[in-house]
Amino acid sequence: VERQHQAALSQRLAQFHPADIAFVLESLAPEPRAAAWALVRSDQRGAVLLEASDTVRRALVLGMAPEDISAVVHTLDSDDIADLVSSLPEELRHAVVERLDRTDQAEVRSVLSFPDGSVGAIMDLDFIAVREDTTLEAVQRLLRRKTALPVHTNELIVVDRSNGLRGVLDLQRLLLDEPDRRVAEVMNPQPTYFYTDDGVRDAITAFEKYDLISCPVVNLHRQVVGRLTVDVVVDEIKERAQAESLRQVGLSEADEDLFAPLAASARRRWPWLVLNLVTAFIASRVIGAFEEVIAALVALAALMPIVASIGGNTGNQAVALVIRGLALGQLGPLQLRKILQREIGINLLNGVVWGLVLGVVTWLLYDSVTLAAVIAAALTLNMVLAATVGVLAPVLLQRLGRDPAMGSSIVLTATTDSMGFLIFLGLAAAFLS
Amino acid sequence: VERQHQAALSQRLAQFHPADIAFVLESLAPEPRAAAWALVRSDQRGAVLLEASDTVRRALVLGMAPEDISAVVHTLDSDDIADLVSSLPEELRHAVVERLDRTDQAEVRSVLSFPDGSVGAIMDLDFIAVREDTTLEAVQRLLRRKTALPVHTNELIVVDRSNGLRGVLDLQRLLLDEPDRRVAEVMNPQPTYFYTDDGVRDAITAFEKYDLISCPVVNLHRQVVGRLTVDVVVDEIKERAQAESLRQVGLSEADEDLFAPLAASARRRWPWLVLNLVTAFIASRVIGAFEEVIAALVALAALMPIVASIGGNTGNQAVALVIRGLALGQLGPLQLRKILQREIGINLLNGVVWGLVLGVVTWLLYDSVTLAAVIAAALTLNMVLAATVGVLAPVLLQRLGRDPAMGSSIVLTATTDSMGFLIFLGLAAAFLS
Repeated sequence: VERQHQAALSQRLAQFHPADIAFVLESLAPEPRAAAWALVRSDQRGAVLLEASDTVRRALVLGMAPEDISAVVHTLDSDDIADLVSSLPEELRHAVVERLDRTDQAEVRSVLSFPDGSVGAIMDLDFIAVREDTTLEAVQRLLRRKTALPVHTNELIVVDRSNGLRGVLDLQRLLLDEPDRRVAEVMNPQPTYFYTDDGVRDAITAFEKYDLISCPVVNLHRQVVGRLTVDVVVDEIKERAQAESLRQVGLSEADEDLFAPLAASARRRWPWLVLNLVTAFIASRVIGAFEEVIAALVALAALMPIVASIGGNTGNQAVALVIRGLALGQLGPLQLRKILQREIGINLLNGVVWGLVLGVVTWLLYDSVTLAAVIAAALTLNMVLAATVGVLAPVLLQRLGRDPAMGSSIVLTATTDSMGFLIFLGLAAAFLS
Repeated sequence: VERQHQAALSQRLAQFHPADIAFVLESLAPEPRAAAWALVRSDQRGAVLLEASDTVRRALVLGMAPEDISAVVHTLDSDDIADLVSSLPEELRHAVVERLDRTDQAEVRSVLSFPDGSVGAIMDLDFIAVREDTTLEAVQRLLRRKTALPVHTNELIVVDRSNGLRGVLDLQRLLLDEPDRRVAEVMNPQPTYFYTDDGVRDAITAFEKYDLISCPVVNLHRQVVGRLTVDVVVDEIKERAQAESLRQVGLSEADEDLFAPLAASARRRWPWLVLNLVTAFIASRVIGAFEEVIAALVALAALMPIVASIGGNTGNQAVALVIRGLALGQLGPLQLRKILQREIGINLLNGVVWGLVLGVVTWLLYDSVTLAAVIAAALTLNMVLAATVGVLAPVLLQRLGRDPAMGSSIVLTATTDSMGFLIFLGLAAAFLS
C-alpha cells in the first residue's frame, strides 16, 4: 500500500513545473526533502536541480549515487550540465564530467573554462544557424525537419562559411515575407552580440536597454559559439539583486539555508562581526581619549551618539545613490563631482537647519548655550563629512577592485562613528573647559 | 552654418537607439538637455520619452507645447501613451488624452484606470488572436497580410467566439507542423495567464519561474484584453530593485535627479532625518537617565556605543534575510519560526563568543572583572534582542500594510540603540555601584 501511495504521489509530482518542485524542496527540512526527492521522476530531476538554489542543489546531488547523477545529467544540454556541475565540489564535478560522452565532455569543459561573471559561462550552446544566400523557403524546409526549436528561439543566426556572424533572422520574417526571398535581404545585418569574455553585467544592461530576447555570442574570431537568452538574464538580474542586498550586511546566499548546522552558520558571520567590533572599538577609544572632558560634563555622553547616528544615516543615503549610479554606469567624472557637490550642499543645508533645532532642544534641556552651539556645529560637520565619505567610499572601493556594496557601509560607519565622537567631544573640549 | 550643423547632428542622433538617446539626455544639465531634445526627430521622441526616467520625462514634456506633445503621442501605441501620460501632472495628462482620437482615448483611459502595481497597468494591448478551429495554413495567410507582428510575439493567443482564452499557439508550431493541422491540435491549452488585477509582483515571480516571454492577460470574464511581455517585466524587476535599495535609506527615485533644485532636494529628506533624530534623541534620553552611573565610571561612556553598534549590525542581517524571504513568498509560519530560532541561536552563540573576547579586552583595558562581565552580558543580550526584532519587525510591518524595506531599519535602530544603552547601563548600575 505504501508503495502504491508513493507511486501515486510521484505521478502527481510529475505534473508540476520543475521550478515548483524546486520551490517545495527548498522549503523542506533535509530529511523530508530527501524523501520528496526520491519521488521525483528521474527524467525531471535534471530540470529540478537547475531550478534549485545552489545550497539545496548541492545537498541533493551529494546524496545521489554517481550512476544516478549520470542518468540525470544525460537528460540535459551540455550548457545546463556545465551550470549544474559548476556548483559541485571539485571531485564530484570531475566524476560527473568523466561519465559524459565525448562531445558533451568537450562542450561542458569549454563552458566551464569561462570565468564566473562572463557571458561565456552562462551562454546557451544550442542555436540554429543559416546561411545568407539561402531562400526563406529553404530555411523553412530545414526547420520542418525538426520537432522543436531550441528554447527562446525568436531568431535564427546567420553565419558565413567559416561560422562568422553575419546577422540575425527574426522568425517572423519566415512567416511574413515571400518564400523566394533570400535571408540576406530580410535579416538584421547589425544585431547586438556579445563576445564570450564580455561581462554579464554589460549583457544585462544591453538586454534591459534594447529589450532583447536572445543574442548571438561569438568568440574572438567573431565566430558564433552560442546564444544568450532573456530567461538566463532575468535569473542573473534576480540573483545579483539578492546577492547585493545580502552582501550589504555581510551575508551570502549560503546564509539563507535554514537547515545548515547552526554552529557553522554562526561562524560564517565572524569576519563581518570582527570587522564591526574593530571599528566600534576604535570609536570607543576615541571616546576614551576624552574621558576627562566627559567626567566634567556627563551630558556629553548622552548627546554624542546623536551626532554619530545621524552621520551614519546621512552617509548611507549618499552610498545608496552612488552605488546605484555605479551599477547603471552613469557616474563619469562630471556626474561624480556633481553628486559630491550636491550631497555636501544638501547635508550642509540640513545640518544647519536640524543642527539648530537640536541646539535649541539641547539648550532647553541643559541650559547651556555653548553646549547647544557645540552640538549644532558637530552635527553639521559630521553630516558634511558623512556625505563626502558616503560619495567617495564606494567609488574608491570600486577603483581598488573591491566590492562597493559590501565595503562601503563598514568604511562609512567607521568614519561617521569615530569622527562624530571626535568632532563633538573635540569641540566640547575646546569650548567647554 | 549653425543650422546645417544642427541638421547634421539631428541626423546622427536619429541613428541612435532611443534608449541611448534617453541615457544621454538623463546625464545632461537642464539647458543642454533642452537643446539636445530639440535635435531629436519628432518620430523618435515618443520612443525616447518612454525610455527616459520619470523625472527627466516629466521635465521634457513640461517644456513642450501641447500640439508638439500630441504629434509625439500619435506615433505611439495606446498602452505606451498611457505609460507616458501616467507620469504627467493631472492637467497635462488631461490635455494630452483630449487630443487623441476616440479609440485611443478609450484604450488609454482603460489602461489608466488600472491601479499602479497591477498587471492591467503595464500590459500591452497589441496582440494577435486566432480561433482554435482554424488550420495553420489559414493562420499563416492571416499573418502574411501584416508587415510586422507586435513586438515580442512568440505566440499567438487562441480565443473562442466571445474572445475567451482557449490557449496559446507558439509561433514555431506554424513553422514546424503540417499546414493542414488545426490550431486546437498543436496549441498549448493550459498557458500561464494573468487577470488584469493580478499584482505585478506575482507576474514577475511567474516570469522568473517559468521563463516566460509573453503571457495573455484576461479580464474577470476570462476574455483576452492584452499581453504581458518580458521586456516590461525586466524593467519592473530593475525598477523594483532600485526603488528598494533607495527606500531602505529613506530616498526615492526623485532623489536621483542631479539637477533638481538643491533646497527642494534637501527638504525632501526631512521626514527621514526627523525620524532618525527622534530615535537618536530617545536613545540619548536613555543614557541621560544613567548620568550618575556614568559620572561614577566614565569608562561606561566609552564602551556603551560598542554594544549599540554591534546590535544594529546583527539586527540588519536578520532584516535582510527576512525581507528576502518575504519578497520570495517563502516565509510561511513554519519558516518564520525556524528563521527566528536560527537567528536567536546564531546570535546567542556569537554573542557569548565575542562577548567573552570583548570582556577580556575590557578587563585588560580597565582592570575590572565586573565591568568585563557586564559588557559581555550586555553584548550577548543586545545581539539576541536585535536578532528577534530584526526578524519580527519586517513581518509585523508587512502585516500592518507598511513597507518593510523602509520601516525596518528605523524600528531596528531605535531598538538596538536605546535597548543597547539600557541593557549595558542598567547592568552597570546594578552590579557596579
